[in-house]
Amino acid sequence: MVTLQDIAEKMGVSKGTVSKALNGASDISETLRKNILETAIAMGYSKIRREKTGEKKLCILIENIEYEMPHQFGYDFIIGFRQMAEPAGYTVDVVAADEKLQKSLPYDVFMLQNNYAGAYVLGFTLNDPWMKDFKVCRTPTALYDNYIKSNPNVASVGIDNAEGMDMAVTYLKKQGHKKIGYLSGALGSFIMQVRHKAFFNAMRQNGLHADASMSGASFYITESMQKHVPRLLNMGITAIICSHDMLANAAMIQCQQLGYDVPGDVSIIGFDDLPICAYTYPPLTSVRQNRLMLGKCGYSALSSLIDQVPIGTLHLHASLIVRESTAQAPKKDAGISTGSSAK
Amino acid sequence: MVTLQDIAEKMGVSKGTVSKALNGASDISETLRKNILETAIAMGYSKIRREKTGEKKLCILIENIEYEMPHQFGYDFIIGFRQMAEPAGYTVDVVAADEKLQKSLPYDVFMLQNNYAGAYVLGFTLNDPWMKDFKVCRTPTALYDNYIKSNPNVASVGIDNAEGMDMAVTYLKKQGHKKIGYLSGALGSFIMQVRHKAFFNAMRQNGLHADASMSGASFYITESMQKHVPRLLNMGITAIICSHDMLANAAMIQCQQLGYDVPGDVSIIGFDDLPICAYTYPPLTSVRQNRLMLGKCGYSALSSLIDQVPIGTLHLHASLIVRESTAQAPKKDAGISTGSSAK
Repeated sequence: MVTLQDIAEKMGVSKGTVSKALNGASDISETLRKNILETAIAMGYSKIRREKTGEKKLCILIENIEYEMPHQFGYDFIIGFRQMAEPAGYTVDVVAADEKLQKSLPYDVFMLQNNYAGAYVLGFTLNDPWMKDFKVCRTPTALYDNYIKSNPNVASVGIDNAEGMDMAVTYLKKQGHKKIGYLSGALGSFIMQVRHKAFFNAMRQNGLHADASMSGASFYITESMQKHVPRLLNMGITAIICSHDMLANAAMIQCQQLGYDVPGDVSIIGFDDLPICAYTYPPLTSVRQNRLMLGKCGYSALSSLIDQVPIGTLHLHASLIVRESTAQAPKKDAGISTGSSAK
Repeated sequence: MVTLQDIAEKMGVSKGTVSKALNGASDISETLRKNILETAIAMGYSKIRREKTGEKKLCILIENIEYEMPHQFGYDFIIGFRQMAEPAGYTVDVVAADEKLQKSLPYDVFMLQNNYAGAYVLGFTLNDPWMKDFKVCRTPTALYDNYIKSNPNVASVGIDNAEGMDMAVTYLKKQGHKKIGYLSGALGSFIMQVRHKAFFNAMRQNGLHADASMSGASFYITESMQKHVPRLLNMGITAIICSHDMLANAAMIQCQQLGYDVPGDVSIIGFDDLPICAYTYPPLTSVRQNRLMLGKCGYSALSSLIDQVPIGTLHLHASLIVRESTAQAPKKDAGISTGSSAK
């Protein structure tokens, strides 16, 4: 067991100074306080501190995801997480973890300072500063749609994207589609990479041909629409799976503007099943991420980590919600109809 | 809600007969009883039945795994599962699910007849009759080291084999090994397939060359020893990763008999970290499956499924336990020493 004295000796400061740093006293410089906290954590002090307080606190660290309104992607995550955590006696804080916060201090220090027993991390990209911290952090941490290898304190939570993609491809194949294209957002996020790979795996497993030319990835949706959609349509593709719903919605509109009927000429499938999918034109078939369940799973994984059960990955079953943006593949000899004459 | 009357009408029997079948009365033929149970399940009756009884029962279905003694592979699974399930109010039965039982009646019927709310399934191969049933079963079921796609009632539980294999390869690379071979049991089980694929992925991710000639898979260990080990050694391989510990132990002995020192000439890594690993000669470096934790995870996944949280996959972090069967790669110009002169 590491004591205040051990830390004091390691730092060459008095035991009182260490105590001040750990208890957030104001009469000590910010730099020294940070150094002491980091040393204390490196020496394994975090657990002792947490046991001393009676408070049970968790946080949801959220970035790049809107969550304040019921129609926004993050809202149900927070509800689901709270439904599990609060009856178990935890207070849950939702913290906007912008780059400024992440750069201001190391992740473990932030968690220790705020006395959080663990965090559920939503919306981080591979470029977020704390992603490096998660590789070695000592605080129990569940990451939604990110994966950290070999740190027993970090779990990855999400839907089974491979299963979801397979459901989409299998469904399209059953509808007679053979030439299926894939549109993706920029491949700079873990989940975009996972889905991209899952698409090609699902095609192979379904015995359908797919090469790089049948997919397109762009950061900007407009670029994707102008560059990739016409190219895919010219290749004779009859169905397009998109890495996320907003991209799928744009693709539907773009196809229609180019004179193609959705789903008469082209079927479109999105990913995530955002609330908006029921209200696009036509309503969008999409692979559902059950966000309420993902909130619950986040707590479940975090709670296991806190209990020293080193969960690495927790994937929820995907499901395919079929709406009107998909239909049987057009007959080969029918040719391409215009938007007005199709169906 | 399906009633006894609905089932009676569907079957063309009286409501009393249905009641007798569902309650296991003796004055009804076995064939009719089975038919009624299967119809009841197909009509979605299983849930109603379970709610009526106050009893909370789970089972561990086990096959091909020994579990009665502490040194046996399955023992800690059962302990871990019970540690979680019993405080939650469940009775846990351990059931040897041999082929005879599996062929005698469908899985859901077995579960309903015995009033089990869910099962943790250990040791099943791809050929087990109930593996087909799991694809469509309605009973919450957690499968250790098996994977069923798209059934929201079934979760897959295991360690992260990709992570474990990566740890083994990364460790060997750090020790200077470049030519690494892989020995596998027969590829007829899901987990053997997963580890086989994980080996080649891990080699690629570590920037090391691996082709099919550097691996060998056999059902019989003796065949593996006679056919693959000499071949790998002749290729100049300095380290062999094995799909399971018993194979690794045999490989160590075979290498020694062929005049190679372990680990002086050849490093050997096993998989599973069976209790015996500490007592092989030399003690075996192995990728650990924490079986107690896997028992706990099995309950955790099952409990989520029972609560209608459709967990698909739950993977525990792997860890590499380094013992004396691995060391730095031999210097290139040193040549192969004999067992007696090495080290």
